[in-house]
Amino acid sequence: MAYAIGIGLLGLGTVGSAVARTLRLRAAYLERRLGRTLAIRRALVRDLTRLRDVPFGLEVLTTDPADAIEARDVDVVVEVMGGVEPAHQYLRRALDAGKHVVTANKEVIATHGVALMRHAAERNLDVYFEASVGGGLPLIGPFRQDLAANDVREMHAILNGTTNYILTQMAAGQGDYATALAEAQRLGYAEPDPTNDVEGHDSAYKLAILGMLAFESEIRPDQVYREGITKLASADFKYAAELGYAIKLLAIAKQRPEGIELRVHPALVGRDSVVGQVDGVYNVVRINGDLVGNALFIGRGAGPEPTSSAIVADLIDLGHNLRAGAHARVPVLIETQATALPMSAVRSRFYLRLWVTDRPGVLAKITAVCGEEQISIASIIQKEADVRAGQAEIVLLTHSAVEAAMQTAVRRIGALDVVARVASFIRIEDLPE
Amino acid sequence: MAYAIGIGLLGLGTVGSAVARTLRLRAAYLERRLGRTLAIRRALVRDLTRLRDVPFGLEVLTTDPADAIEARDVDVVVEVMGGVEPAHQYLRRALDAGKHVVTANKEVIATHGVALMRHAAERNLDVYFEASVGGGLPLIGPFRQDLAANDVREMHAILNGTTNYILTQMAAGQGDYATALAEAQRLGYAEPDPTNDVEGHDSAYKLAILGMLAFESEIRPDQVYREGITKLASADFKYAAELGYAIKLLAIAKQRPEGIELRVHPALVGRDSVVGQVDGVYNVVRINGDLVGNALFIGRGAGPEPTSSAIVADLIDLGHNLRAGAHARVPVLIETQATALPMSAVRSRFYLRLWVTDRPGVLAKITAVCGEEQISIASIIQKEADVRAGQAEIVLLTHSAVEAAMQTAVRRIGALDVVARVASFIRIEDLPE
Repeated sequence: MAYAIGIGLLGLGTVGSAVARTLRLRAAYLERRLGRTLAIRRALVRDLTRLRDVPFGLEVLTTDPADAIEARDVDVVVEVMGGVEPAHQYLRRALDAGKHVVTANKEVIATHGVALMRHAAERNLDVYFEASVGGGLPLIGPFRQDLAANDVREMHAILNGTTNYILTQMAAGQGDYATALAEAQRLGYAEPDPTNDVEGHDSAYKLAILGMLAFESEIRPDQVYREGITKLASADFKYAAELGYAIKLLAIAKQRPEGIELRVHPALVGRDSVVGQVDGVYNVVRINGDLVGNALFIGRGAGPEPTSSAIVADLIDLGHNLRAGAHARVPVLIETQATALPMSAVRSRFYLRLWVTDRPGVLAKITAVCGEEQISIASIIQKEADVRAGQAEIVLLTHSAVEAAMQTAVRRIGALDVVARVASFIRIEDLPE
Repeated sequence: MAYAIGIGLLGLGTVGSAVARTLRLRAAYLERRLGRTLAIRRALVRDLTRLRDVPFGLEVLTTDPADAIEARDVDVVVEVMGGVEPAHQYLRRALDAGKHVVTANKEVIATHGVALMRHAAERNLDVYFEASVGGGLPLIGPFRQDLAANDVREMHAILNGTTNYILTQMAAGQGDYATALAEAQRLGYAEPDPTNDVEGHDSAYKLAILGMLAFESEIRPDQVYREGITKLASADFKYAAELGYAIKLLAIAKQRPEGIELRVHPALVGRDSVVGQVDGVYNVVRINGDLVGNALFIGRGAGPEPTSSAIVADLIDLGHNLRAGAHARVPVLIETQATALPMSAVRSRFYLRLWVTDRPGVLAKITAVCGEEQISIASIIQKEADVRAGQAEIVLLTHSAVEAAMQTAVRRIGALDVVARVASFIRIEDLPE
């Protein structure tokens, strides 16, 4: 029995089943590589009687968390339940019981990751979480290890496949937000309650994790400024395309002298940039390091198989550590709390779409407000006109400006008697090669 | 003295100097991370008196290889000399002397990598070579570790920045091959003798290394079919663009039931694919694994700083091993020699450009040859006509066909009395999302 590395699997849904399948499929390879097999000793489930596509004996399935976490023949607890609690408490109990842990849980790592890693380090145990960001795309490994010699200056990422699918549909003229969301739900890409994805929570968790590794500071998810995609209109995609841009839900982190910019919001990015071309359910992470320059990673950000790829990679690394007696081989260096730059101090360029009264002097009033708020206008284009209502649609692009000034300008512009409404306000991110 | 990890640096050119600079710049971080400093104890140079931008004391610089390799206070030998010999012998001597090795040398790893890894494993030592492929872009780490749970089915890559720069210039209409090469040489992207890059040798070495890791088989560089970029004409870039393609020097590896396809040659790839959009000196590696699906890695493939990023990452990993007493932690699993599928058996689509006699019946003769060789034509387009010479230029695209049949067809078409010459013959690679 001691020949195998014993796994306590918490959760046997689609991801847990994929892990079990992959371990079965790769059993011979894993034994050759690790000198030991990987065996699922316990699998924590809610219902013992449900039919499953991966069959387990009754000695494996359990509804008792303590059994799955603390059994003597379990060496590592693999958590694929999702949600902060009870997953977080289970992982902590696993560490207390002397078990290594592997988790796909972005919420737990984003909110309790540093504490769990410290708890583990004190016990000479490992915490793995490659599957928590970017599905099977290697990100945690490269950030912890391969890019460690770099001073990471900034990061731009698309970390949520659901919203990227919706935005890709909207950009292709496949309907407005509600239509694209319904289609994503029909295909199983979006949850019945899509809030977590479309409001940017999921992206913020993942950005907090990548930022923690890149900047070696603990980042609370609530330090990430967050704006979702629900207010984007089809017209914005049309005008963005005309201007040479795509609209993406970006997760952005930038190191500034005064603190780290941390933000998730829709942004115009050049359609000729790689990030602007990553469509559908794909994710992309683009980092800029002082040594490597720009490096980009692209792949499917979710799904049971990609996630199982990441979890098994973690188990392989753990297997190497067990083989070499090298627990807690990579030290936890996250000792500081990040200082987040307030959103009001962030600089960027802006895209503004307005409906205005179609009469002379309108542009003079708008440009006067911008001038007073120190905002330099790059271009103003009149798009549509509603003759009956006597209104015209205007798109305005600014040069780089401070968010606070821009917010004030937008408020003042919206209050002008010649302005019917500010229809859209989207930041622009430049991603030079 | 034992507090530091001692480095014997072989070569103090641009890369060696960048490594020294990075170690100096990151000294505090590395000590915090590894619990020890990294100190260059010896640096092997040709000329002791040359002025260098990284100053070393006279006790460090040496012209004696034995001194740099075997000194008692050297724990790891970092080789950044380039070329197969004497670099290969130096690395072997280092292992014999009980030193770990880190190398940026693709020729050595492609030709002697497996033997060196075995030699090291027998001595409980590590061989690192992240810098040998893709500059600072993490590839070796992800291939050895993060993607290890995958059965890699195929890989498409642009692994040479020099040729990608030249092809990008040609695609932009910045002159023919000779002009673009001269510009690349002027900018220092191409060597005075560009053979190694433009004939695909460099890409073949790197493909052999990535293929070795992906397929866990030793691949000799001469098993890689190789065709350079010197015969590409401006007209091909123009027509490719019209048809929706870019032309790239691709390094391709595909697992087939009968063996592994291994080939480096120019190829038409969709301009709307990410690979088709990677321009200039950037590299890209796109792998398809059974679990992750497609994953892409993009970054600068060369340069002193990116290379130093990879070398220092290797030194960090080694430092973790030394700290944990976990030498040779990742086993060498490469025990078989790859069976390469002969190029004649490879299937792909083809682009053919011909000058033909401008008279009726020409197309009938060409299509008859294709039909007899079981080659299905997707489209034939007449492009230019030279009225005075009575000739017309034709571009022909085929459906998927076997290379041997296509070669026969091309020979037969070239011999037709109505065909003046076969101007170009380029394979087409499809890269679906």
